[in-house]
Amino acid sequence: MYEELKKAVCVSNIELHKQKLVIYSWGNVSGIDRSAGIVAIKPSGLAYDELTADKIVLVDLDGNIVEGQGDQAEGLDRIKPTFGGLHRIPPAAGGLKPSSDTPTHLELYRNFKAIGGICHTHSPVATMWAQSCREIPCFGTTHADYFYGSIPVTKVMTKNEIQNNYELNTGKAIVRRFANIDPMEIPAVLVANHGSFTWGKSAAVAVEAAVVLEQVAAIALGTVTINPGQGPIAEALLDKHYLRKHGKDAYYGQQSVRTPKEKPKKE
Amino acid sequence: MYEELKKAVCVSNIELHKQKLVIYSWGNVSGIDRSAGIVAIKPSGLAYDELTADKIVLVDLDGNIVEGQGDQAEGLDRIKPTFGGLHRIPPAAGGLKPSSDTPTHLELYRNFKAIGGICHTHSPVATMWAQSCREIPCFGTTHADYFYGSIPVTKVMTKNEIQNNYELNTGKAIVRRFANIDPMEIPAVLVANHGSFTWGKSAAVAVEAAVVLEQVAAIALGTVTINPGQGPIAEALLDKHYLRKHGKDAYYGQQSVRTPKEKPKKE
Amino acid sequence: MYEELKKAVCVSNIELHKQKLVIYSWGNVSGIDRSAGIVAIKPSGLAYDELTADKIVLVDLDGNIVEGQGDQAEGLDRIKPTFGGLHRIPPAAGGLKPSSDTPTHLELYRNFKAIGGICHTHSPVATMWAQSCREIPCFGTTHADYFYGSIPVTKVMTKNEIQNNYELNTGKAIVRRFANIDPMEIPAVLVANHGSFTWGKSAAVAVEAAVVLEQVAAIALGTVTINPGQGPIAEALLDKHYLRKHGKDAYYGQQSVRTPKEKPKKE
Amino acid sequence: MYEELKKAVCVSNIELHKQKLVIYSWGNVSGIDRSAGIVAIKPSGLAYDELTADKIVLVDLDGNIVEGQGDQAEGLDRIKPTFGGLHRIPPAAGGLKPSSDTPTHLELYRNFKAIGGICHTHSPVATMWAQSCREIPCFGTTHADYFYGSIPVTKVMTKNEIQNNYELNTGKAIVRRFANIDPMEIPAVLVANHGSFTWGKSAAVAVEAAVVLEQVAAIALGTVTINPGQGPIAEALLDKHYLRKHGKDAYYGQQSVRTPKEKPKKE
Repeated sequence: MYEELKKAVCVSNIELHKQKLVIYSWGNVSGIDRSAGIVAIKPSGLAYDELTADKIVLVDLDGNIVEGQGDQAEGLDRIKPTFGGLHRIPPAAGGLKPSSDTPTHLELYRNFKAIGGICHTHSPVATMWAQSCREIPCFGTTHADYFYGSIPVTKVMTKNEIQNNYELNTGKAIVRRFANIDPMEIPAVLVANHGSFTWGKSAAVAVEAAVVLEQVAAIALGTVTINPGQGPIAEALLDKHYLRKHGKDAYYGQQSVRTPKEKPKKE
Repeated sequence: MYEELKKAVCVSNIELHKQKLVIYSWGNVSGIDRSAGIVAIKPSGLAYDELTADKIVLVDLDGNIVEGQGDQAEGLDRIKPTFGGLHRIPPAAGGLKPSSDTPTHLELYRNFKAIGGICHTHSPVATMWAQSCREIPCFGTTHADYFYGSIPVTKVMTKNEIQNNYELNTGKAIVRRFANIDPMEIPAVLVANHGSFTWGKSAAVAVEAAVVLEQVAAIALGTVTINPGQGPIAEALLDKHYLRKHGKDAYYGQQSVRTPKEKPKKE
Repeated sequence: MYEELKKAVCVSNIELHKQKLVIYSWGNVSGIDRSAGIVAIKPSGLAYDELTADKIVLVDLDGNIVEGQGDQAEGLDRIKPTFGGLHRIPPAAGGLKPSSDTPTHLELYRNFKAIGGICHTHSPVATMWAQSCREIPCFGTTHADYFYGSIPVTKVMTKNEIQNNYELNTGKAIVRRFANIDPMEIPAVLVANHGSFTWGKSAAVAVEAAVVLEQVAAIALGTVTINPGQGPIAEALLDKHYLRKHGKDAYYGQQSVRTPKEKPKKE
Repeated sequence: MYEELKKAVCVSNIELHKQKLVIYSWGNVSGIDRSAGIVAIKPSGLAYDELTADKIVLVDLDGNIVEGQGDQAEGLDRIKPTFGGLHRIPPAAGGLKPSSDTPTHLELYRNFKAIGGICHTHSPVATMWAQSCREIPCFGTTHADYFYGSIPVTKVMTKNEIQNNYELNTGKAIVRRFANIDPMEIPAVLVANHGSFTWGKSAAVAVEAAVVLEQVAAIALGTVTINPGQGPIAEALLDKHYLRKHGKDAYYGQQSVRTPKEKPKKE
């Protein structure tokens, strides 16, 4: 059941590691089957080199673990515990627990109806911006080719939000920040003091957005180093680059497979 | 027809990826057959690992697609669409579309008569300078060995230039910036808010210039970090290093294959 | 004797090199058998590619070399001397000398009773902070997932401490700095003007802490570059992230193997 | 003749490339047979992947090319010319020309009597410091383990020095800078506006010094970024670290192979 989804989510998690966005178990990718309302996500704390499709955990949109996942997962006897929570020991019960960030993923799926995959990382340069609680301005066309404006940063969470349902509240903070932003136009966010979440129509696309975000974050860091007073590009240039790839008259690439759309209203 | 040119352009595009100057489809290289007036260029949005010589697109200097290219290109059924315009889907019609930056390339070929290849990238460090709208001063002999002065940056484009014939106008902005510069002496430019274009007598040399530009940009970034007040090197040192490699009395390397030239006049 | 310990220590030293935390012989890892009071440590100045388990040196907690180590070590005739003390020559006597930093390791084992392994490196970014004599504030959850507060820096050593029993005094400076810190909660220190020491329940975990420290140090460097005024995260967030991995109610990963503990008192 | 020397110099040049200190032909290594007064050096402009021992050029200390080198060098027909002076074309006459930096090497060999090998690179971070015309202060023990004080920078060369016998004058500028420094204690220099030269008792050791210099330069750059007011370490710590590896009572490594020496006088 859901073999294709689990396989795609497994491959995307491993891609995160290949792209050097994460070390140890510092990231997780999920994908959703919208018709069934089932989310496939990385198990908590597992190393990427131990990951196989049968270990991917399935949950519903309320966070209930769907029966049967991981029960016959092979190779779990090789899992050893280490310092930072990288667990290689079989759980007490038969199945594997989903990522501890699962409630954040679910909140995004419930609110961003068009997305099909989510990726969470602590990739170094995006995390520098997240830790600085600074949005990444659109300094150039590399950014504009993918994101239709600044990469927003969430508000710093309150003590109460942290102490009660922290991961769910992380999702709520993201959703609130996107009150006036179309998440398909800016498929990335910086969570203050933390790291990034990216998303897209599939798990693979969510990972691609994370790779691009890391590159864009690095170029932006160099930009403010060379010229601390640099401002964002003109709206005309942002429109040009974003819309030549993503607009209804997109002419980049060999064929547009996106639904043609009017130029979206900016917040 | 033009098999050698297409093969050389294909290899140079792949080299861009090998040298880690680009990720996904973030760059394009072209080459020209001056006697025929035919330009070979990367197809729009294709991944480098899908690129083969038969997929390279041929256009004339007015941008007309030359008949027959790409019609029987193999492997296109493997092309899948993704988030950022990386297309792996066959176009509606038989042939592949050339890079969306083709009008920029053509404008450069029409005006810089001595060049035989052009390379466009968003390589990270050169792009930091481009996004900062700052030229790269000649801070040392590494720079002077290849570029006979600062790497110029174009003017920020106007709203009108962006909204009408954007890619052509990008080329015009570059050509205007080189009104008093010999493009063979400074084979690189930073396009403000965007990235770099480099060129040379062939596609391979254009890519080499991009690799060198990235390294020079990185060393310059470190230089202004250590010493924000650092100025450019003396003209005598610039002359010495540039001309021992490129002047009529060049003595670097095993044999000069360039046309001997007088010391060029500086602007 | 102690074959398992020597093998584990050998593998962890090589891991240091694989993780690119060290070049040449710039680091050393040790492990301890607490019941026997025997410490296994890298021999001084040996290259990692020459390291085998039989060359690991055994000492007791007073620094006495335990008989028999390295006597029949193979391949020592290939050891050649070089500039920076990377020795590949057999010692005059049969056995190999332990790392010159051994007295530092022993002082830590004598005082930090819970630790089972120690790692010393000059990994670049952690060393930038150590050379700056600045602690690394907890700027984000990446840091909080592993270290329960700032990474402390020792006091600059006095002339007397340097000239007499330098390596032992380095250990004493670390121990003094941890007078009010539980070393299992913050398993890392920056030695002023020098580099880092990390530790954990085993040699492997000590190396993992060094890898994480380097990443955390890099993200912190970017954070102060983007926002020089950035302060540490709120205590509630530090508690949340550290304790969800390390507290008595830890819920990260598949199964907690740590002894449940009360929330520790902060200094 | 001199087969061993040529082989060692060839291997050391290739090592420069393996260690990622150079791209294209941006560096050269030489070695000397002191008894014969013969220097072996990389040919000018050749790519490292074309380099074989039989292509290494031999010159005497006055710069005369020693008969017979390179005459029967194989594979030269594969050498092709490119943009930046990377030549792969056979020279007009049978032999290969030595590096254009040969007069600098020779001036160092004539004046620094104890050295057996020299390495010149434009390695990125050392070059950032050289371009900034700033010496690298000894900020920590990583530096002190190899270099007994700051890495000096030469004076900016005069117009006359540049225009007449430039490469020889580069050597003279280095020698003047070392008037009060023992080159075996600080085996590296930054040439202002240019790059670095390092040396040692052999070509291999000179390359090792270049690798270490690059790492030390990078850590120093991070140090001044974190703490712009950071000063050098205390003399006692410099003495301790340098002399435990290099002094008469050296105790680092397995066996000292250096001539025991008194603590040298500082300038």
